[in-house]
Amino acid sequence: MSTRATSIWGWGYADKFPEAEARRALGEQVSALLGGPPLEPREPAALDALRLPRPRVAPPEALAALCSVEDTDRAAHTYGKGYGDLVRGFHGDFSSAPDFVARPRTEEDVRAVMDWCGNHRVALIPFGGGTSVVRGVEAAIGDGFRGAVSLDMRGMDRVVEVDPVSRAARIQAGATGPVLEAQLASHGFTLRHFPQSFEFSTLGGWIATRAGGHFATLYTHIDDLVQSTRMLTPRGLYETRRLPASGAGPAPDRLVLGSEGTLGVITEAWVRVQARPRFRANASVHFPDFTSGARAVRELSQSGLHPSNCRLLDAQESFLNGVTGDGSCVLVLAFESADHPQQAKMERALAITASHGGECREGARYRSEEMGSQARAGGAADSWRSAFIEAPYLQNVMVSLGVIADTFETACTWDRFDELHGSILESMRGALERICGGGSVSCRFTHVYPDGPAPYYTFIGPAKPGGELAQWMALKQAASDAVMAHGGTITHHHAVGRLHRPWYDRERPEPFALALKAVKGALDPQGILNPGVLVGP
Amino acid sequence: MSTRATSIWGWGYADKFPEAEARRALGEQVSALLGGPPLEPREPAALDALRLPRPRVAPPEALAALCSVEDTDRAAHTYGKGYGDLVRGFHGDFSSAPDFVARPRTEEDVRAVMDWCGNHRVALIPFGGGTSVVRGVEAAIGDGFRGAVSLDMRGMDRVVEVDPVSRAARIQAGATGPVLEAQLASHGFTLRHFPQSFEFSTLGGWIATRAGGHFATLYTHIDDLVQSTRMLTPRGLYETRRLPASGAGPAPDRLVLGSEGTLGVITEAWVRVQARPRFRANASVHFPDFTSGARAVRELSQSGLHPSNCRLLDAQESFLNGVTGDGSCVLVLAFESADHPQQAKMERALAITASHGGECREGARYRSEEMGSQARAGGAADSWRSAFIEAPYLQNVMVSLGVIADTFETACTWDRFDELHGSILESMRGALERICGGGSVSCRFTHVYPDGPAPYYTFIGPAKPGGELAQWMALKQAASDAVMAHGGTITHHHAVGRLHRPWYDRERPEPFALALKAVKGALDPQGILNPGVLVGP
Repeated sequence: MSTRATSIWGWGYADKFPEAEARRALGEQVSALLGGPPLEPREPAALDALRLPRPRVAPPEALAALCSVEDTDRAAHTYGKGYGDLVRGFHGDFSSAPDFVARPRTEEDVRAVMDWCGNHRVALIPFGGGTSVVRGVEAAIGDGFRGAVSLDMRGMDRVVEVDPVSRAARIQAGATGPVLEAQLASHGFTLRHFPQSFEFSTLGGWIATRAGGHFATLYTHIDDLVQSTRMLTPRGLYETRRLPASGAGPAPDRLVLGSEGTLGVITEAWVRVQARPRFRANASVHFPDFTSGARAVRELSQSGLHPSNCRLLDAQESFLNGVTGDGSCVLVLAFESADHPQQAKMERALAITASHGGECREGARYRSEEMGSQARAGGAADSWRSAFIEAPYLQNVMVSLGVIADTFETACTWDRFDELHGSILESMRGALERICGGGSVSCRFTHVYPDGPAPYYTFIGPAKPGGELAQWMALKQAASDAVMAHGGTITHHHAVGRLHRPWYDRERPEPFALALKAVKGALDPQGILNPGVLVGP
Repeated sequence: MSTRATSIWGWGYADKFPEAEARRALGEQVSALLGGPPLEPREPAALDALRLPRPRVAPPEALAALCSVEDTDRAAHTYGKGYGDLVRGFHGDFSSAPDFVARPRTEEDVRAVMDWCGNHRVALIPFGGGTSVVRGVEAAIGDGFRGAVSLDMRGMDRVVEVDPVSRAARIQAGATGPVLEAQLASHGFTLRHFPQSFEFSTLGGWIATRAGGHFATLYTHIDDLVQSTRMLTPRGLYETRRLPASGAGPAPDRLVLGSEGTLGVITEAWVRVQARPRFRANASVHFPDFTSGARAVRELSQSGLHPSNCRLLDAQESFLNGVTGDGSCVLVLAFESADHPQQAKMERALAITASHGGECREGARYRSEEMGSQARAGGAADSWRSAFIEAPYLQNVMVSLGVIADTFETACTWDRFDELHGSILESMRGALERICGGGSVSCRFTHVYPDGPAPYYTFIGPAKPGGELAQWMALKQAASDAVMAHGGTITHHHAVGRLHRPWYDRERPEPFALALKAVKGALDPQGILNPGVLVGP
């Protein structure tokens, strides 16, 4: 594990939180954008001023070596990294802190912690990498428990086995993106699952939350890369057979995927890996408006070309991400392959985008490692990628400036998209005006399917001092209500957690809720695993 | 619905069962192959000699108009179309006959039948198109019920709605392949799901059993084509939201897919349709042995080329299907697209197969409807396709000749394939020798994945008169034990039913069995739906 310190309250490495002067300069840009008064950067609560409840339970002697009761550890495991988490942490409010943190090194350790929790009516919250943006790792567990333990799996981070013939690897659930990629690289493979949280999130967390990754089409979720799973439940080991496919009853892995820590603790998985891409094609295509861009993306999604990247940014996103500032929408388009050149696919794709008014200003760029060319993709693709990785750091700054800044995402069928998109923009603009006195909302597509897109929205608005959480929740409510009213899903890849639960309950069929409740009762009869998520009160 | 009569005991249309003379000629070919004595064709039991139990329950007045108590209807709904079904039917043994057959015209009819069954402790067996080869539709329900009703859904066969923008269609579950394709064609679309049972199986059956279809890669199962499902359960309507994708908890559709009639009756689904392919590329590649062919297919499966057809036939299959008789193995390879030419992909694929010793004797053939060429694919592809569709009819003849002829299929990771394949061949050859005094086993790949193939085995052997069922079960046992011992799944796309249940119980994780049992209890508390399948005694 890295020894570089991570922020207790904010996203990522602590040393990446800018000095006040730099934040003030950013504040000037933001207030210019929002048209409000100058924004003054505030400082997060000092380490010795964090407010945590006294622990209700202590780790037993047998587990003491795995456990930490330190307040800094408890604080760092209190929340995920959603806007509401950052705000509470920034102000030193760690009232949901777990009673202690357990760091298993082996599956036996996990079993021991789980047994102890079950025997002592203590909630067990799998922490993953702690990057949940939906309150998925927060011990908001109600009164039915004597306490709560946060289970930090990052000590179990090895690539245990690689099968080069089937191109698969057995990896422990606590491995973060960089840690598993570094180990796979030594075998000549890559998983190529790059969610925005890549640096800090874990394989187990990806599986538990059905994380969305690198590929804009075809292999969009971690679901598509999972060959088999191994999950420890209070009723025993849930380990599926390694298979490329099966038709034997409902798929057992599909119950693990999306279980969000409520049915067991994922300890390992076999995942499908691949050779590093050697052929690439990149282009950015400008459209006069989002509607024509969306039509082009729809035709691309139904063409069978399967671009690896197909991210349509609206004018505001294009501007905010430094891709272009001329009011056009930009489609960031890429193809990649470890096997064969991608020119023909890109040419066909550009013919499709041109037929919808798209303009490829710089010409497509091709890179083949085989041909020895080291030309960078460049242009919009590069600008977009660096903005993508840095975006969560920017949210830290926004919190310090007193600006509400958050994202939400959904997916819907193409026939509903225009209506859903229009309604979300209208609803969010109205809500920002009403609640914040102004603000901005923008959209991009992160993933696309033959039958619909996954639009991703970013909104910012000035907060009223002290009222940030209530304002943010009102905005979240407006966004989620619009999504649900117009045929979207409450989440395409951010998971349900505690934040999305009310809308999730409306989205799923009622008999499925009964089914899931029954499964929970069968596998976790004491209900200790991540209480309140997906099922139960 | 077609008025052409279907066989009560055998596969397909009754008029396709050859006259005795033609069967005698086939028998000579088979006995030449098996090296045994001449095979004399027998005649199936006469219609007035079928043995059915007396009905235990009768349809109530309110349902009488939907129900049939005729013995021919009861007999035609007694079994699926597996080898054991054909043998029993051929000899007139219909001892598992349902008490009556219900043919709902609306979802309300389904509800009424389900309610009546629940209130009267009568088992309800969704029949689909009755093409199960795993005893999935047989009322072998034990003593816990007062009777059994077979639910024939084929009266609900309409394409209700087409969404051309999202390329999706809402289709009633009782539509068979030809019936739904004809309706989709009038909208310019196709589902392109072509299981071997295509002519007679239904959309609902495909979903309930996770049927495998046309595409050898990428969209291999109906699972991949389902956008949302609608299933009537004893606890209410289970209807999922139409979505291209979601990350909201475990996927509700994935519990319907593979539920095999145990959790509810599927009444409708939204499925992803597509434009008819306009560009095609076909080739057949000969390999000196199966091992080199399998290596070539492995590299193809990991290339990202995604052929629509990639079926490797061993020497015996190539001979039996009339593709070639020179002892080589043949790979039937095809690409198709509605959007762009497939030449480049085929050329890259043939470079891969050539590097493994594959020889494309006739050259690849390309057909583009755009270019006005009507050249047929021809060669091995055509021979293979017609043999594929006719194969189940051949099984009728085999039964009349007293020959055991059956297939089984699995999937495994590539690293296990050589061992699994060797073990299956050895085990089946030994079992055929021991049990039948000789016989033949052959293999082909029906579907392939980056991490493993789905091999499909055909075996034939002479039966001892009167001992067919016991001999067949002993062969099935040998096959299934070998599959399970070497890392395969008990079924890649034939489902579990009652036939595969013992091995399925070993394949699935024990906590998943607990979960499924809990779901069954929650959705079907009286346990009336297809008892004995997947869960329960």
